[in-house]
Amino acid sequence: MKRVAAQEYSGILFLFLLVISSYVLGAQSKKVISSKKPCKRLVLYYHDTMFTGNNAGNATAATIANPNGTGLGPFKFGKTVVFDDPMTPDKHFRSPPVARAQGFYFYDMKTTYNAWFAYSLVFNSTKYKGTLNIMGADMMDEATRDLSVVGGTGDFFMTRGIATFRTDEVEGADYFRVEMDIKLYECY
Amino acid sequence: MKRVAAQEYSGILFLFLLVISSYVLGAQSKKVISSKKPCKRLVLYYHDTMFTGNNAGNATAATIANPNGTGLGPFKFGKTVVFDDPMTPDKHFRSPPVARAQGFYFYDMKTTYNAWFAYSLVFNSTKYKGTLNIMGADMMDEATRDLSVVGGTGDFFMTRGIATFRTDEVEGADYFRVEMDIKLYECY
Amino acid sequence: MKRVAAQEYSGILFLFLLVISSYVLGAQSKKVISSKKPCKRLVLYYHDTMFTGNNAGNATAATIANPNGTGLGPFKFGKTVVFDDPMTPDKHFRSPPVARAQGFYFYDMKTTYNAWFAYSLVFNSTKYKGTLNIMGADMMDEATRDLSVVGGTGDFFMTRGIATFRTDEVEGADYFRVEMDIKLYECY
Repeated sequence: MKRVAAQEYSGILFLFLLVISSYVLGAQSKKVISSKKPCKRLVLYYHDTMFTGNNAGNATAATIANPNGTGLGPFKFGKTVVFDDPMTPDKHFRSPPVARAQGFYFYDMKTTYNAWFAYSLVFNSTKYKGTLNIMGADMMDEATRDLSVVGGTGDFFMTRGIATFRTDEVEGADYFRVEMDIKLYECY
Repeated sequence: MKRVAAQEYSGILFLFLLVISSYVLGAQSKKVISSKKPCKRLVLYYHDTMFTGNNAGNATAATIANPNGTGLGPFKFGKTVVFDDPMTPDKHFRSPPVARAQGFYFYDMKTTYNAWFAYSLVFNSTKYKGTLNIMGADMMDEATRDLSVVGGTGDFFMTRGIATFRTDEVEGADYFRVEMDIKLYECY
Repeated sequence: MKRVAAQEYSGILFLFLLVISSYVLGAQSKKVISSKKPCKRLVLYYHDTMFTGNNAGNATAATIANPNGTGLGPFKFGKTVVFDDPMTPDKHFRSPPVARAQGFYFYDMKTTYNAWFAYSLVFNSTKYKGTLNIMGADMMDEATRDLSVVGGTGDFFMTRGIATFRTDEVEGADYFRVEMDIKLYECY
């Protein structure tokens, strides 16, 4: 009699397990973070070539307000730029872009050069179709700085992560290159 | 003796199950994605009526910089617009709005019309109170394009998802209508 | 014979439990929402001191477009401000800031004062290093209004949440203070 009871008990446990495991497996359709290891990583180079009035062929960015800043300090506070910049897999400006960076930045500090970015990486290649949406502070004095990947679409459906900026080259006011190390921690 | 052991074993298992199930049920307070089916969906129409100087009664959007673009290409690159546009449940401009779209966009391509949006949908009706925050690229040449719903408040507390744009009508430079198909994949 | 079967059954269950529990513990590396209780909370004060041309020492914000608005209504629709404002733990402007708020806002309503914000809180203290990225509508007529914390970096790696604004003081057009009650619901 007791043996049967124990077995029935196990039977109930087993059903309970099935219910729980179905919950758990359902939850696993979203891959969650494990010890800060990215589920996807892309290292790309951002080329910002400013429009100076007569270089429309090469230029991919233009000042939309306050070319010399607002006068609050000598670091172009308030200068605002809209861009549609190529993203290449290596440092070469002439390499075929794998994405476009479309968005804007402005300078926002009176004591040093510092910027704030919001933009989309638009992928339209055989490898990736979709976008990543990114925003955050670009504290240019730091060797690297982290912005947030706040969403994604297409092949990057609902992703989130971190975009680490590292200034790679600055050529006066008219060209700069930034390495963007994009680490996605939530993939679907 | 052995029978008792087996039963105790089951007792320990049962306690273990209780601990695990409480974890699992805790985790379930966040509804996670299941095969890309939205937990909520809203299809709304965005009406953008530009301020032309003498239509303040109807207008809900105004150019804040570069009405003719910056000169980088002929597609108004850098023209920037702030809006507080009505969102209606059908195509009719005169339908009672169910939300306001508050934010901005700018044109950002030198080879075609293309824009970048960041805005909030502000709901204040008997049905919904709260906001959805959205950003992303609006590649107007595509039949549909996806932006990211990056957060929400109130009835949309902490939600995330995708807002799919489809141009519904364009009347010159002064009015256009976009269908926004908002699919939320993370609800709370 | 039957007793052994029951015990083996329990043994299988136990292995099954181990597999499930490892899944569950893996999933727990992301702390999920439990009944809307924040995993972290910060109440800070935002001080916005406008640049008026001769107060560069104190000013931390500057108008970048349309100081008087675009003419769409009398509530400065389209006036746009870039800021690098101090965040203090209490109301006092002179208190040592614990973070900087770097970003922008614009006025966006023709029938009342209303704004839209996007910015980063940049922490660089012994207590916190990292950033929080925030965007949303600031409906100034409401006693409180919620914006979205859409991402974080450093000590705020991948966080999300709500930033509740409450206007604390307005001194004409040149200074205002907002209490920002930042509640994070996803921490890592």
